[in-house]
Amino acid sequence: MEKRILWINPVTTDLFNTIFKSEFDRIKQAGTIVDVVSLTPGPGPTHLEYNCYEVMLMPEILRVIKKAEEDGYDAAIIGCFYDPVLRAAREISKKMVVTAPAEASLHIAATLGESISIIVGRRKWIPEMRENVHKYGFADKLASFKSLDMGVHDFQKDHQVTMQRMREAAREAVEKDGANVLVLGCTIEFGFYREIQEELGVPVIDASLAPFKYAEFLIELNQKFGWSHSKLDGYQSPPDDEVACWKLF
Amino acid sequence: MEKRILWINPVTTDLFNTIFKSEFDRIKQAGTIVDVVSLTPGPGPTHLEYNCYEVMLMPEILRVIKKAEEDGYDAAIIGCFYDPVLRAAREISKKMVVTAPAEASLHIAATLGESISIIVGRRKWIPEMRENVHKYGFADKLASFKSLDMGVHDFQKDHQVTMQRMREAAREAVEKDGANVLVLGCTIEFGFYREIQEELGVPVIDASLAPFKYAEFLIELNQKFGWSHSKLDGYQSPPDDEVACWKLF
Amino acid sequence: MEKRILWINPVTTDLFNTIFKSEFDRIKQAGTIVDVVSLTPGPGPTHLEYNCYEVMLMPEILRVIKKAEEDGYDAAIIGCFYDPVLRAAREISKKMVVTAPAEASLHIAATLGESISIIVGRRKWIPEMRENVHKYGFADKLASFKSLDMGVHDFQKDHQVTMQRMREAAREAVEKDGANVLVLGCTIEFGFYREIQEELGVPVIDASLAPFKYAEFLIELNQKFGWSHSKLDGYQSPPDDEVACWKLF
Amino acid sequence: MEKRILWINPVTTDLFNTIFKSEFDRIKQAGTIVDVVSLTPGPGPTHLEYNCYEVMLMPEILRVIKKAEEDGYDAAIIGCFYDPVLRAAREISKKMVVTAPAEASLHIAATLGESISIIVGRRKWIPEMRENVHKYGFADKLASFKSLDMGVHDFQKDHQVTMQRMREAAREAVEKDGANVLVLGCTIEFGFYREIQEELGVPVIDASLAPFKYAEFLIELNQKFGWSHSKLDGYQSPPDDEVACWKLF
Amino acid sequence: MEKRILWINPVTTDLFNTIFKSEFDRIKQAGTIVDVVSLTPGPGPTHLEYNCYEVMLMPEILRVIKKAEEDGYDAAIIGCFYDPVLRAAREISKKMVVTAPAEASLHIAATLGESISIIVGRRKWIPEMRENVHKYGFADKLASFKSLDMGVHDFQKDHQVTMQRMREAAREAVEKDGANVLVLGCTIEFGFYREIQEELGVPVIDASLAPFKYAEFLIELNQKFGWSHSKLDGYQSPPDDEVACWKLF
Amino acid sequence: MEKRILWINPVTTDLFNTIFKSEFDRIKQAGTIVDVVSLTPGPGPTHLEYNCYEVMLMPEILRVIKKAEEDGYDAAIIGCFYDPVLRAAREISKKMVVTAPAEASLHIAATLGESISIIVGRRKWIPEMRENVHKYGFADKLASFKSLDMGVHDFQKDHQVTMQRMREAAREAVEKDGANVLVLGCTIEFGFYREIQEELGVPVIDASLAPFKYAEFLIELNQKFGWSHSKLDGYQSPPDDEVACWKLF
Repeated sequence: MEKRILWINPVTTDLFNTIFKSEFDRIKQAGTIVDVVSLTPGPGPTHLEYNCYEVMLMPEILRVIKKAEEDGYDAAIIGCFYDPVLRAAREISKKMVVTAPAEASLHIAATLGESISIIVGRRKWIPEMRENVHKYGFADKLASFKSLDMGVHDFQKDHQVTMQRMREAAREAVEKDGANVLVLGCTIEFGFYREIQEELGVPVIDASLAPFKYAEFLIELNQKFGWSHSKLDGYQSPPDDEVACWKLF
Repeated sequence: MEKRILWINPVTTDLFNTIFKSEFDRIKQAGTIVDVVSLTPGPGPTHLEYNCYEVMLMPEILRVIKKAEEDGYDAAIIGCFYDPVLRAAREISKKMVVTAPAEASLHIAATLGESISIIVGRRKWIPEMRENVHKYGFADKLASFKSLDMGVHDFQKDHQVTMQRMREAAREAVEKDGANVLVLGCTIEFGFYREIQEELGVPVIDASLAPFKYAEFLIELNQKFGWSHSKLDGYQSPPDDEVACWKLF
Repeated sequence: MEKRILWINPVTTDLFNTIFKSEFDRIKQAGTIVDVVSLTPGPGPTHLEYNCYEVMLMPEILRVIKKAEEDGYDAAIIGCFYDPVLRAAREISKKMVVTAPAEASLHIAATLGESISIIVGRRKWIPEMRENVHKYGFADKLASFKSLDMGVHDFQKDHQVTMQRMREAAREAVEKDGANVLVLGCTIEFGFYREIQEELGVPVIDASLAPFKYAEFLIELNQKFGWSHSKLDGYQSPPDDEVACWKLF
Repeated sequence: MEKRILWINPVTTDLFNTIFKSEFDRIKQAGTIVDVVSLTPGPGPTHLEYNCYEVMLMPEILRVIKKAEEDGYDAAIIGCFYDPVLRAAREISKKMVVTAPAEASLHIAATLGESISIIVGRRKWIPEMRENVHKYGFADKLASFKSLDMGVHDFQKDHQVTMQRMREAAREAVEKDGANVLVLGCTIEFGFYREIQEELGVPVIDASLAPFKYAEFLIELNQKFGWSHSKLDGYQSPPDDEVACWKLF
Repeated sequence: MEKRILWINPVTTDLFNTIFKSEFDRIKQAGTIVDVVSLTPGPGPTHLEYNCYEVMLMPEILRVIKKAEEDGYDAAIIGCFYDPVLRAAREISKKMVVTAPAEASLHIAATLGESISIIVGRRKWIPEMRENVHKYGFADKLASFKSLDMGVHDFQKDHQVTMQRMREAAREAVEKDGANVLVLGCTIEFGFYREIQEELGVPVIDASLAPFKYAEFLIELNQKFGWSHSKLDGYQSPPDDEVACWKLF
Repeated sequence: MEKRILWINPVTTDLFNTIFKSEFDRIKQAGTIVDVVSLTPGPGPTHLEYNCYEVMLMPEILRVIKKAEEDGYDAAIIGCFYDPVLRAAREISKKMVVTAPAEASLHIAATLGESISIIVGRRKWIPEMRENVHKYGFADKLASFKSLDMGVHDFQKDHQVTMQRMREAAREAVEKDGANVLVLGCTIEFGFYREIQEELGVPVIDASLAPFKYAEFLIELNQKFGWSHSKLDGYQSPPDDEVACWKLF
């Protein structure tokens, strides 16, 4: 069965759309069709380091999600490691599954190792991400957060600098903090996982590849067994008439 | 010192503004000035039972918060028991404190009793609220959630019906679940706390009075000791130039 | 790429091998090849309700796993909801991934719902399973265990009886315990999930389908990204010379 | 409405009564009347670094609390960061609220920041204080305890020495341990919070100002809404006849 | 080696001294010498159902403990299930070990079973006892508290009534709450454990026998290996000169 | 009453049997009879650093346990700090108690101190041991694991080297990690506890002495009060007819 996936770069720049699309095309399953979109260009956040940036873009993300289901996608991925609007996205999706980088990366990391370090850009990011680690159930497996002291748009500027800092942070996580599996805590930390992984000999989870594969996995569960987000409680969809009457999406 | 507080009913109806304003005026401190606003009227959510409703209104809530600080308010309260956009609101507030019903009610309840039940409208609300109970640190003190099987707009329709259901839920919480302090888990469950409290002999925390008083308290800490939200990590404000350049608020 | 999976029914009867094989063939991915084996027939446990039964069979399970990797399998699944010898199996597997029913089912359940009930055969099973729920990180999401008061070999005896008990337990889990996703806590509870799922409108995770799909997922992560069990700490392989010298497997 | 508060320095020296009184008078609300008392002078503990010192003074503290309520106080504060006899004090208080430094400071710190370090005098103090941090619900928010290696009576001896040690401990807490809000874990660490706060740019909670303001807050909740300690379970008052018969207080 | 144990009934009545003494003499080890004391007779609490009763007697308990060590006892047991003044008692004991009912009973129960219910007299007792269960590390193993709705002095009034209530509570704990080991949560619930144990087929821990045997065990560890309470941090003894100067004990 | 204890060195070498036997004889109670056995000699693990080594020996360990009960032993101790097959051993023991080093050492450590460090041979061991620390309830009391970077068979090679590394690790645990009680995390770390204990002034729990004394303690509880492992749920024995029919042990 075909699997149609929409990756959403939840920012106003399409800077990374092409590279993500080509990377996903390279590693997708035979029957998967993937599209990568970003939000309406124009003045607006090109990164989501601040929660208030997330918030200002959330309605548009939700609209993109809503439309994705109408357009026949089987899964949508909200491409930011804060996993923004995940609950709301699951509410408005009637059949489509939705996932996000932290959720997917942490489930994988907790299956492959027993002590996880997350390598982030700035310590500013840590509290919101720590909330998610706890929420998903992996607090006891968290070895540490390591900050590279870099912003989202610094990672791809000078690959050698980034690699150097990442290598140091990763080594410290493994040697001092006791980590045995690493997670790169930003989708824009792409392109580095394999080299670190080979150097240190521990799995290094990439924050865009992980949710992409997790989406394919969840689609398959849905298509074959009807397993998708429980609509009984927290992910219950709003009544159609309210949504229509309020012209919500 | 004067304390200026803005209560935000984060919905598109001003239905409850007058009653909230008059209630707050009745119980405020001498030097407190309080205003109650709701969001732009017109088609849009009149309640936030669904997380996706919250999300669609979040940018406007944030704009109201931003403007509140510019207008000289000392505190803003986001009047919904899901405590929506609390992190973002604290990010964009440079000096102003921001609080919300669940945070305030739970801190108070955990000081007054040792086993807390939260009386909600529908079981749909529970997972998001449970996340907050855990996040704030009160999971070990949670006796139960009790659902009245009523929507936000049902509470004030027929007071006798509401009181009857609330009384039953409250009694069950106390007698079967071991609760010794109750929290009414919706700001629109106003007007009932005192009767239940007197009947059952346990404190019953009202979800609008609690955050209002908590706001006065936080303002005072801020004015007298300079204690306000830590701007080092999770509540760090975004850079002014980005905000300006992106015309965010 | 081809995915070769070995499902191990870790008991001395091949009673369920054919039905598992045909069910997996029906729902596998295009490139997947699956084999189902059980342990050496002859006197020995035909079910693992007691931990001491697990233990007596563990060495043979490990030998099967060891041989599976030598025979070129990409994943092995230890088909019992106690997830026996998972750690040891990961130690001796150099590249092959290994998973098991509880691990897989709980990761899926925690992604699809927020409050999990596990439907088991007897209350005798609960403490060992509860240990696993805690170990995997899902204690906070556990609504309840429900016991059907049936042994492993009772489930398939009279489908109507089983369905009737399962329906009652499931309904109680959802209505009284607040579950919004269910897990069937035994691989031999096969054949029932879909009917319960449709009746109650919540996802019901089948304990053999879940790990089978999780294995395909993990294989893919391994093949494409080199992500497999961290060999640094807990899953480190024993030295070849010791294993050889002691003729261990 | 008037708020009458009694601050109890639970030691046999009145050394700090005057300075506490004048500090509280300076920062109190308009309608607040505050008195500061210590225990009967004479041989007896002048500090409570040891739990056995607390214990030997507990009955007198309780008697002071009992009398405070009879004398018409609305709140009593037990001025030691171990929060001694808090449960008993709430039992014997029928209407009066009682609070203490750790409880108040931690509720405030958890509202203002997300990762708390507590700066104590000696590591001897840590286990008892850690118990309280866990009991109040803030274990997940605890970054570290930092010890100054000073006794209670050292803090005010040479302010420069104290400030220097505190500055170092505070900086280490923020930079190495990831704290974004600090608590000074002794009421006699007074006079330092503001300088550290301004230097490091994070809120620094003073252990006497915090409970004083928390007391005013709790009084107001009690006066306006009848919210005070739940008398149903843990804070239930003993029967009057037993107390009288045993001449307890 | 001889083991000298002092059991303290921390109340002003010697009502139970003889029966405790004779019971301990019956079940002690060959080399054990046990004495049972209560506090100074006269007006004062004859039970400790209220924390404030505990507090009023704490200094005398400590003095008894202090003298016990001087008199050559190897262990003291504070005979109340709230485990009052345990920390202080360990501080002032230089070599002597000190234990108490809840600590001992819970360590034993957690070794013998996996899900513990505690049968108490009144729900009033539960919050303080729950604090101890959490503090000792057994929160995850707690199935429930069951209240008999009886005071300390009711248990021995009419044995049939007590047995009947205890039987019902115990059965409910086992059948509904999933307990597989029970603890009787008051030292005065003596005389009942064996009958319940035989009826229900689960271990029922008696709250005076358990700490008595635990004391013998701890003495032996101390005598043979020098293992006693760590004096580095929380149980550090106060300086002799302060204690002398303040005439503390 | 006599206490018959069987210590099992669950390895194929009898290298340490004599020294363990003579050490136990030296420190046992008057009425205790102790035997020390190891497993069938011949090619097979002489240490259990890898979980797969444990697994391969588990059936034989179980058989030894089964036979121990038939031979009239009152307790069996499985002498490895991973506490292998503890659950299964309790299942098959009808009256005999079974314990193991980590369980016993941690219960003792948590009674004597408040912050525990465990000194292990290699970091490889940590994840499995951490699981046990959590399972037994002592996660909140865990200060750190310290690795000596030595294998099981290195400890007794050059006592000076071992002592030197242990001293450093122990000092770091106490000074940097805040430990106030230490546990030596391998039975073969024997012979060192007392010197470290005297140097550092904190209790250092030896992993073979601790479970030996714990076994004597548990036997006494069993003999005098009938308290042994709850056979209701997790430790329920398998049906005799299945065991016989399958020729299991």
